[in-house]
Amino acid sequence: MTDGGSALGGADASELFQLLRDGRPRTMTELATVTGLARSTVGLRLNTLTSLGLIGTVDPGLSTGGRPPRRVALIPDARLALAIDVGASHVQVGLTNLVGDVLLRRRAPINVADGPDPVLSRALAIADPLLEELGRSRTAIIAIGIGLPGPVHFETGRPSKPPLMPGWDGFDVPGWFRDHIAAPVLVDNDVNIMALGEHSRLEREVGHFLFVKVATGIGAGIISGGLLQRGAQGIAGDIGHVRVGRGAGVLCRCGNEGCLEALASGPAVASDLREDGLDAQSAKDVVALVTSGDLRAIQAVRQAGRDLGEVLAASISFLNPSVISIGGQMAAAGEHLLAGVREVVYQRAMPLATRNLQIMTARTGDRAGLIGAGMLAIHHALSPRGIQALDDAASF
Amino acid sequence: MTDGGSALGGADASELFQLLRDGRPRTMTELATVTGLARSTVGLRLNTLTSLGLIGTVDPGLSTGGRPPRRVALIPDARLALAIDVGASHVQVGLTNLVGDVLLRRRAPINVADGPDPVLSRALAIADPLLEELGRSRTAIIAIGIGLPGPVHFETGRPSKPPLMPGWDGFDVPGWFRDHIAAPVLVDNDVNIMALGEHSRLEREVGHFLFVKVATGIGAGIISGGLLQRGAQGIAGDIGHVRVGRGAGVLCRCGNEGCLEALASGPAVASDLREDGLDAQSAKDVVALVTSGDLRAIQAVRQAGRDLGEVLAASISFLNPSVISIGGQMAAAGEHLLAGVREVVYQRAMPLATRNLQIMTARTGDRAGLIGAGMLAIHHALSPRGIQALDDAASF
Repeated sequence: MTDGGSALGGADASELFQLLRDGRPRTMTELATVTGLARSTVGLRLNTLTSLGLIGTVDPGLSTGGRPPRRVALIPDARLALAIDVGASHVQVGLTNLVGDVLLRRRAPINVADGPDPVLSRALAIADPLLEELGRSRTAIIAIGIGLPGPVHFETGRPSKPPLMPGWDGFDVPGWFRDHIAAPVLVDNDVNIMALGEHSRLEREVGHFLFVKVATGIGAGIISGGLLQRGAQGIAGDIGHVRVGRGAGVLCRCGNEGCLEALASGPAVASDLREDGLDAQSAKDVVALVTSGDLRAIQAVRQAGRDLGEVLAASISFLNPSVISIGGQMAAAGEHLLAGVREVVYQRAMPLATRNLQIMTARTGDRAGLIGAGMLAIHHALSPRGIQALDDAASF
Repeated sequence: MTDGGSALGGADASELFQLLRDGRPRTMTELATVTGLARSTVGLRLNTLTSLGLIGTVDPGLSTGGRPPRRVALIPDARLALAIDVGASHVQVGLTNLVGDVLLRRRAPINVADGPDPVLSRALAIADPLLEELGRSRTAIIAIGIGLPGPVHFETGRPSKPPLMPGWDGFDVPGWFRDHIAAPVLVDNDVNIMALGEHSRLEREVGHFLFVKVATGIGAGIISGGLLQRGAQGIAGDIGHVRVGRGAGVLCRCGNEGCLEALASGPAVASDLREDGLDAQSAKDVVALVTSGDLRAIQAVRQAGRDLGEVLAASISFLNPSVISIGGQMAAAGEHLLAGVREVVYQRAMPLATRNLQIMTARTGDRAGLIGAGMLAIHHALSPRGIQALDDAASF
């Protein structure tokens, strides 16, 4: 294809493709009817998508007679997304197909403070054997999605003054991958990708959704009107430093006092328990004590839930979500954390806003970030712009 | 046009039309290039829009020679939107053109508690002479936008248990208009339409915007990712009942204590001033005292600003907006209210979120709702779905 023709052919091929993304096979006639394009035009554009390897002809199966019409459909395993979920002390790497199923995943210890090159190299070193296991190579990767434990400037894929990640500030993460894999790289903060991951696995379509991560820090990912909302500076959902009632006099590492994070995060609860003479340093220790049935730990987690509930009651007034999922390490304390949240939310928020509100523990557990990184990559790759870019690349 | 053909022709005509909505004239060649449609197809579809009266040929003006190409453009005054802003004690009625300019408007006292029929009849009785003044009739109206002072189920246009509006609960507002004007009717709550109105008049394009109305009640309209967010039950932005720190022991009409509205609304501040021996019943009285330079009133308004700032600091953490506009009657107290808001917001919210945040008094003043009702109507009428409906209606 040539310049202008390619640009237009690609753009329109992608329009057709948006129809096929649901996985349902369709005949040329159906596609022509729905798009209003001439059959010949549909044919040309399907050729583009076929040559990109994204769609294929479906076996017509048994026919009642006559020549069955040719039907085309998305090929879910045509390409793969590489999903990388970077935490402070571990990295999870996975491969997903084009509908977001995680085909393989592996977890390894890292130290994010070692800086971008060691951490990203480690992730790639995990990805290669996974690819091999599937009998594929790096060229099968259509896009890469990465979550990082800190603020990220989404448009450029560069971390933006991340407190836990020395050496990462302003680092060109997509640029680093360019030398290794020829695919677009989408970078976002970990809570946003967890929100995407959990949202994609809800039982029904939910337009207004809040994901809350409670671990070393506390943050939220917001989906409004069906879309992830990053806000003007990409820091929407940064609820860890909202002040809560119980917080007077409690100093936070941000310099303010009474922040949610200083009261209800894993380390904050662990610190309270240490004052009671218990041995707890982290969210993990707190959850272990709760699981062992320690009453003081259960009470402390429940109180953390109440503090969180106070902030969530306000967020419900703002955003009016229909589902709130609570994830992160502290969510493993299960119903005790949620009981505190519900206690305050149902007391504080307006009845109309809570009548149909579901508050639950994230069902994707520790896979939320990995699933979300995959979804982020696929959404981009299969968007009109993504298809256009694929077609442009193929024409060189 | 006939059935299937009309549906597709209309849908595609609307696509072309979305290009023309910016008001810039374009040639057939430009339109064919951008859409990828054949020139003959573009011609057919432009005929649809021309027959709907929405576009016209632009005078080519002076040419350097040869036959100048025919250019088409939106005709802003081709049709009108009827905008109605219903308050508790007044109604504003206006006519806007297709780009949202308010051509004429009029205000009249009503009592919303009289019920829907008297109030809506009054609005229509105001609209007719306005139409006449412009030399137009009801058939010129392409859509009707209405704001009501209570919760509205946006999809059906029915008020939903509005506390100040007896007789309106569940009333079919669009149905009422059907007997009078053949045009789609969009109904939303007053704060949402004020947000749309103010947002449409900002100096630059703002994707993440918060409009706060402070009057008898307190509420917010939220624009995230460029779209008004209504939430799952249509009550996003209902911030009047978020608890604030100063509120312990202060009972709210909702039954909870410490709600923002119970401390910072017009009646709440007036009540505080009465305790100081001042004569103040409403937001209007408070503003009059502030304007006259009364120090106690100024201090009370500034404290109301601090209370509001506390809730806005949390909302900034959630939504990360780049502009917050404060409107409603209390906004007429100007910088005194804003000073309190800013004092708390800059102390409480994270620096990254406030670095480029603009907090200002709404520039559209008491026209915010009217402008927004017009924008709501136009957005709907000129959307692909709206154009399709126009075309369907024209084919009968």
